[in-house]
Amino acid sequence: MIKVGYLGPAGTFTHDAALIFVKESKYELVEFSSIQELILAVAGGEVDKAVVPMENSMEGTVNLTVDMLIHEVDLYIVGELIIPIHHCLMAKSGMEIGDITKVLSHPQALAQCRKFLDGFMDGGKRQVTESTAAAAMLVMESRESWAAIANHRAAEIYSLNVLKEGIQDNDDNSTRFVVLASNRVEKTGDDKTTLAFTVNHKPGGLYQALKIFADMDINLTKIESRPMRTLLGEYLFLVDLEGHEDEAGIGLALEQLRGQSRFFKILGSYPKIYP
Amino acid sequence: MIKVGYLGPAGTFTHDAALIFVKESKYELVEFSSIQELILAVAGGEVDKAVVPMENSMEGTVNLTVDMLIHEVDLYIVGELIIPIHHCLMAKSGMEIGDITKVLSHPQALAQCRKFLDGFMDGGKRQVTESTAAAAMLVMESRESWAAIANHRAAEIYSLNVLKEGIQDNDDNSTRFVVLASNRVEKTGDDKTTLAFTVNHKPGGLYQALKIFADMDINLTKIESRPMRTLLGEYLFLVDLEGHEDEAGIGLALEQLRGQSRFFKILGSYPKIYP
Repeated sequence: MIKVGYLGPAGTFTHDAALIFVKESKYELVEFSSIQELILAVAGGEVDKAVVPMENSMEGTVNLTVDMLIHEVDLYIVGELIIPIHHCLMAKSGMEIGDITKVLSHPQALAQCRKFLDGFMDGGKRQVTESTAAAAMLVMESRESWAAIANHRAAEIYSLNVLKEGIQDNDDNSTRFVVLASNRVEKTGDDKTTLAFTVNHKPGGLYQALKIFADMDINLTKIESRPMRTLLGEYLFLVDLEGHEDEAGIGLALEQLRGQSRFFKILGSYPKIYP
Repeated sequence: MIKVGYLGPAGTFTHDAALIFVKESKYELVEFSSIQELILAVAGGEVDKAVVPMENSMEGTVNLTVDMLIHEVDLYIVGELIIPIHHCLMAKSGMEIGDITKVLSHPQALAQCRKFLDGFMDGGKRQVTESTAAAAMLVMESRESWAAIANHRAAEIYSLNVLKEGIQDNDDNSTRFVVLASNRVEKTGDDKTTLAFTVNHKPGGLYQALKIFADMDINLTKIESRPMRTLLGEYLFLVDLEGHEDEAGIGLALEQLRGQSRFFKILGSYPKIYP
């Protein structure tokens, strides 16, 4: 049985991502209570893979994921998942929207459903919880006429009735998760590579680095600069590009960049998905 | 009296940023309860300036700030502030660390002080609140032996005693705030410009755009790609560069980039600060 770690509790969006990842195979899910423990568990061999939030997550600091991958562990990204943030209002069966006296959820979920909530109740009747799943659990356990904002799976897990679906103000929110493992994955022909590298903090520094990719016709799908406090005067960039490091052109470009960067690390080549 | 809007409640890090901004002048602070209302208030002339979180904030979705500046309002960034996230453990006077039965704070503050908290109490004795200031207020109002994690100013506002300072696990956390107004500011000779522009989503697209800056010896201090759902096949970049748009070289480079971008917007030129 392959052990897959995820950030708990059950019923959160990160649990959803882990369940989507394991749905077609025989895996055992192992719950962790922090991103740090989860990443260290896969690095230490306690679990085989980990599903961790990478971008725009609601539950957990994602800088932590990126910083650990860059500086603290030698793991590979072997896959990615993009989960749309789809909120539901849920309560015990028999309750209707008009009965609700208080809405519970994670602060970001409450913020993401602000317009919807303003439509039927004032700001005072909201209560923050540690996660969306914790809100669903509290509603299930309470004798009050409370409702929770969480995802569909939380409603199933905590036997709640979904009163209204898709109550987020903005439909564009999604969270990107990555799957981590100790070993690389082979190329599929439609892959993506994530890498981190530094350039001198002077005019044209990044331009010179990107020239390598432009000359080889390599497409970048994401770029982000990050502060790098340990190397003064250097800037760290996090880049996603189309292709696998085992493809000849990509490999050559990466070697060239490695040669001219004081810090260079490939975080992984993995099958691309289309959100 | 110049009205400056900020994201409340009093005692949060955003309140701190606003107080630092207004400290040397005669301003009236106006509290708002959401970033959206705050930005619309300065756009509508209800307040003269607004202090809003831009990066790595603890309290509020910062994508919201950036997206509103790019797509929804025509405002200028006229200044920036970088506030280190410095957490304190606080309780009513007379209490000691050993007396504490529960620690209250915003989920991100609890996460940022995780190692410290693990050192003296188990995970069950934490309670999440809507903001760090709300935690301090609840501790002040309660008869229980509770403590809050919040900043120094919250301890003053809510008459609490700081038991321990600097309890965050990582000293590198800071939040960048920007000051927004309807009018641009003149150059000081040591400025920064923030702009957003799109490039074609094909190999070398970004490289061609950065060539303009490299050729003019303009230094970029930040770059970030963002999804742009309204223009398919285009990628949006958010860039900070050294210099003011009124400087000849910068102005020329910006005009050249504007000429080759389907979407181009200068979010502001403003005095640079050194974190």
